[in-house]
Amino acid sequence: MIRVAVDAMGGDRGPEEIVAGAVDASSDTVQPVIVGPRDLDTQGLELIEAPDVIAMDEKPAEAVRAKPNSSLVVACRAVGERTADAVVSAGNTGAMLAACLLELRRIPGVRRPAIAVTIPARRGPSVLLDSGANADARPEDLVQFAHMGAVFAEEILGVARPEIRLLSIGEEPEKGSLLTREAHRLLAATDLNFAGNTEGRDLLTGAADVVVTDGFTGNVALKVTEGTIQSLLEGLREEVTATAVGKLGGLLIRPAARRLRKRLDPDTYGGAYLLGLRGLAVIAHGNSSRRAITNAVSLAARGVEKDVVGRLAQNLGESVLASRPSTTPTPNVR
Amino acid sequence: MIRVAVDAMGGDRGPEEIVAGAVDASSDTVQPVIVGPRDLDTQGLELIEAPDVIAMDEKPAEAVRAKPNSSLVVACRAVGERTADAVVSAGNTGAMLAACLLELRRIPGVRRPAIAVTIPARRGPSVLLDSGANADARPEDLVQFAHMGAVFAEEILGVARPEIRLLSIGEEPEKGSLLTREAHRLLAATDLNFAGNTEGRDLLTGAADVVVTDGFTGNVALKVTEGTIQSLLEGLREEVTATAVGKLGGLLIRPAARRLRKRLDPDTYGGAYLLGLRGLAVIAHGNSSRRAITNAVSLAARGVEKDVVGRLAQNLGESVLASRPSTTPTPNVR
Repeated sequence: MIRVAVDAMGGDRGPEEIVAGAVDASSDTVQPVIVGPRDLDTQGLELIEAPDVIAMDEKPAEAVRAKPNSSLVVACRAVGERTADAVVSAGNTGAMLAACLLELRRIPGVRRPAIAVTIPARRGPSVLLDSGANADARPEDLVQFAHMGAVFAEEILGVARPEIRLLSIGEEPEKGSLLTREAHRLLAATDLNFAGNTEGRDLLTGAADVVVTDGFTGNVALKVTEGTIQSLLEGLREEVTATAVGKLGGLLIRPAARRLRKRLDPDTYGGAYLLGLRGLAVIAHGNSSRRAITNAVSLAARGVEKDVVGRLAQNLGESVLASRPSTTPTPNVR
Repeated sequence: MIRVAVDAMGGDRGPEEIVAGAVDASSDTVQPVIVGPRDLDTQGLELIEAPDVIAMDEKPAEAVRAKPNSSLVVACRAVGERTADAVVSAGNTGAMLAACLLELRRIPGVRRPAIAVTIPARRGPSVLLDSGANADARPEDLVQFAHMGAVFAEEILGVARPEIRLLSIGEEPEKGSLLTREAHRLLAATDLNFAGNTEGRDLLTGAADVVVTDGFTGNVALKVTEGTIQSLLEGLREEVTATAVGKLGGLLIRPAARRLRKRLDPDTYGGAYLLGLRGLAVIAHGNSSRRAITNAVSLAARGVEKDVVGRLAQNLGESVLASRPSTTPTPNVR
């Protein structure tokens, strides 16, 4: 039985929505455990008591320090103390990151964890990381992100020998920033299936199975994608409803638009893994629906089942050894 | 009469398209001058001879050094030598940047020029800079970009006291990278109308009149926007044409879709200014149509008419003086 600690008090829609999503996710193999205040109606699910709440707008590090008994921190601690196998929260992302670093700790050799977001690309799902765990990264961090993304793509997306690309501003290795140019060099020297740079233009088409970037760029890219989808669909609605003929056409294409929207819906994936830690953590969208929470719990359970954390520890341990400075450059074994 | 040197050999569509666009832009006040080989049919426009051509995929710095008589370099030189007032090229962006630095040189005090792209945001046009002139930037560069963007918004978009925001990964000043956090502090201390951070989500909605970022992030944001628009419209077409009813609806909304596409069409603006130089340069899309070239020439002419370069030199000169290090922090005079 896989036990997933679910932070009932995170997210914008309130604990009822989250408990309902957790109930839907419970099965013969998955047992969600609700973390929240004593008087919460858990719909029959087990409760781990946590009297405090961290709000969405609290300063992450301070909130985590000041509220060790908040639902978010207690849920993370449950994984750290092995009373749960994974944690899901739709709460304050920064606080989740801080609580995970504190309660789960990093895999030895990992300098920075990364948020791995699944992009519903046209060619099939691909994973973008780091999507915002750290605003600043070093070239070596990007190599670790590539290893993490490869494990994610193999175990969760089911891709053998996933193709990895580096997000940059030109396809040639010499195009890009100091960070990406050096990361390109390091990635080419690993035994990963590194296929070079990709440009932002291909993110939603399906540039690669794994797209590696620093958390600042990844977060901007993700939000630009979301904003563009929303603006474009609103703009289209505006133009379509401007004429009677357009309105009729709009009615007729409604099912098609709905199918497209569903394909692009972040709720389909439920949440993003926070990778590089000694336990499995899933960060769900603040505005997560019941369905999103169900999917987030399933995503967490799948990660436990596939031993993503163990695989990461193994691969990153090897990559840490392999990336030790040497006087001769490591050959590109691709 | 404003003379605009037009590089006939840049761009993917060949010189006929570019000459045609230049012809359409010529008026009582604007005189396009074609730069290209001796035997080119200029449709009656004046020719500045340039025997060589820089290809789209040549390495910028090397190409500019190796081909001083290429159409791109000669067109830039015409502005440097004051035989033209501005230059337009749809050629190799990197080569254009290198040629402009060489032939036009920077405004005193400017460390890095920036590419200013007009975003067709829903609230109205806004300018994003740097959109890719430099992959790496310092906080002080971002302050200069803000000054450049302000002049652009005032003179070209006609906005009085334009609102400026910094592209980051959270609205709070403390959110972001080392670069954006320091740039935020510096921007708040200027007399610009700085309104804080904006997130990628609002780029196409119209976050501000001027959105400031480093060239790496700006280029990624721009390409993600373009790619998302394309993917989404293709995805919609796919879904719509999957059923007979959808197909009919698709026919009925075609004019609406066309209006939307037109609003978002980069050809409407024709090109992007390269700001921070002692002369006016417009970089057009590689795939520029005749109409795009016409608009790019008009954009260049408008910049000359409004003395964008003179205004920049004046404002940046002042900002250079104002940003000299002092022991007491400059008060925020907003």
